[in-house]
Amino acid sequence: MRWRNGFIAVDWGTTNRRAYRLDTAGACESEFEDDQGILSIAPGGFPDAIAEIRRCLGDLPLLLAGMVGSNRGWVEAPYVACPAGLDDLAQNLAWPGEREAIVPGVCFVGDGRADVMRGEEVQLLGAVATGQVPADALVCHPGTHNKWVVVQRGRIESFRTVMTGELFSLLRKHSILADLLNADAEPDDSFRRGVRHGLDEDDLTSELFAVRARVLLGEARREDAASYTSGLLIGSDVRIGLSDGGATVCVMGRPELTRLYAEAIREAGATPNELDGEQSFLSGIGAIATRI
Amino acid sequence: MRWRNGFIAVDWGTTNRRAYRLDTAGACESEFEDDQGILSIAPGGFPDAIAEIRRCLGDLPLLLAGMVGSNRGWVEAPYVACPAGLDDLAQNLAWPGEREAIVPGVCFVGDGRADVMRGEEVQLLGAVATGQVPADALVCHPGTHNKWVVVQRGRIESFRTVMTGELFSLLRKHSILADLLNADAEPDDSFRRGVRHGLDEDDLTSELFAVRARVLLGEARREDAASYTSGLLIGSDVRIGLSDGGATVCVMGRPELTRLYAEAIREAGATPNELDGEQSFLSGIGAIATRI
Repeated sequence: MRWRNGFIAVDWGTTNRRAYRLDTAGACESEFEDDQGILSIAPGGFPDAIAEIRRCLGDLPLLLAGMVGSNRGWVEAPYVACPAGLDDLAQNLAWPGEREAIVPGVCFVGDGRADVMRGEEVQLLGAVATGQVPADALVCHPGTHNKWVVVQRGRIESFRTVMTGELFSLLRKHSILADLLNADAEPDDSFRRGVRHGLDEDDLTSELFAVRARVLLGEARREDAASYTSGLLIGSDVRIGLSDGGATVCVMGRPELTRLYAEAIREAGATPNELDGEQSFLSGIGAIATRI
Repeated sequence: MRWRNGFIAVDWGTTNRRAYRLDTAGACESEFEDDQGILSIAPGGFPDAIAEIRRCLGDLPLLLAGMVGSNRGWVEAPYVACPAGLDDLAQNLAWPGEREAIVPGVCFVGDGRADVMRGEEVQLLGAVATGQVPADALVCHPGTHNKWVVVQRGRIESFRTVMTGELFSLLRKHSILADLLNADAEPDDSFRRGVRHGLDEDDLTSELFAVRARVLLGEARREDAASYTSGLLIGSDVRIGLSDGGATVCVMGRPELTRLYAEAIREAGATPNELDGEQSFLSGIGAIATRI
């Protein structure tokens, strides 16, 4: 490892960033989170944004991951093709400066499909490195864009994105269902009914409208609509994710999302294993840093 | 018919309205269209909006249809349950004044589903009245919310709404696909490929993300994304609509939409018959007026 005095790890997404100062043993000494996602950075503004991180956390090398390496970010770090492990990521870093490296995303092309991820790969392979995720596993990584990832021999073999989180957000903010969806979704009976429908039926774009019709006609309660709709979308997502089988699923991400997916995976007859994504990010970025 | 000197027919939707002065024979003498949909009318503002219509078209009775009869409209005209024909609509008009009547919407509850329509029923039953749609038929009525309607013995027996138009609009305006979808969808090869996927697969929420991934990875052309995505959504819609069979489908609505649905219905192996919705509205509203 070239960076003997520790480094700063940055998980830099579209709408926010988290930065961590890691000591020589990979332990987190200090951190901050703010809303300076890449869309908030003006053209040419990344050097200043980087300097700000160093003012907060110290004058150390930086290892960055997430959308900061996309074509809308600082410097593009081209996608590494599947199968991809930590070695592949470490060998394909982009170097905007001598003390700043960006982790590449991962892409999959095959089976008539094409897919990309950027950010999730570090968390996921970090969890593999620590043994939280087995070397052969099916991983579900919910977020704006949920990822179903097939891990084989410790590397990302293939994966598939489902737009569940973004669609729920679009429906909640802008659709005719908006005034029905302002409650938080809970893993309750309404949620499970929605999951069941999403697992068993393939009429999502019709059933979404029925959510509103049932409330108008007194066939469902207005306050159940958010949980039912979330269940419907997540059930449909889990049906897609489990279509190639999978008895145990590692579910990693933010707890408020993983508990909903875990409930839907149970409803589908599989066994979920919930993991904390933030800690796995630090494990993954630390493992990449040791390979520099 | 009570209104011996003709009347004004108004098709008053969420975002715009069309008004027509019809003579005693039901022929259109004069008309206008503007963007004063019900969401543009301030609370308590309907009497003024009605007076404005009369200033334009004459001091005649008004027969109104569409969202003006919803709980966000002028006066609520409660839904009539299926099966519903022109007689049922005429017998359940709401009367905000002595010279203003509002046509009710239609609802369906059954088979574990619930659904509502408001506005399409006039066009559809108008086309049945003139013989353009047979007394036993499957009708597809695209718009913001596409309706698949089973007509039996000249009445609406059941129907099903699919949110295709609204979803495409949400994706185009607000989603991560927005910058790929600003072209108009055309019934071309890309559209047909999307339709084929939507008809054969049930992974819509995943395939939508693949649209972006393919462009990023050079596996598809950016300029084909709008047609492909439209085809994907409409193919999925047609799969739902034809799930109970149907060899011939009457497709009514705006020509720029009916031609896309007609193409998708052909791709699914059924025969589309395209009809003009506007003329059918006048036939339907005229037929209701004769029953007053």
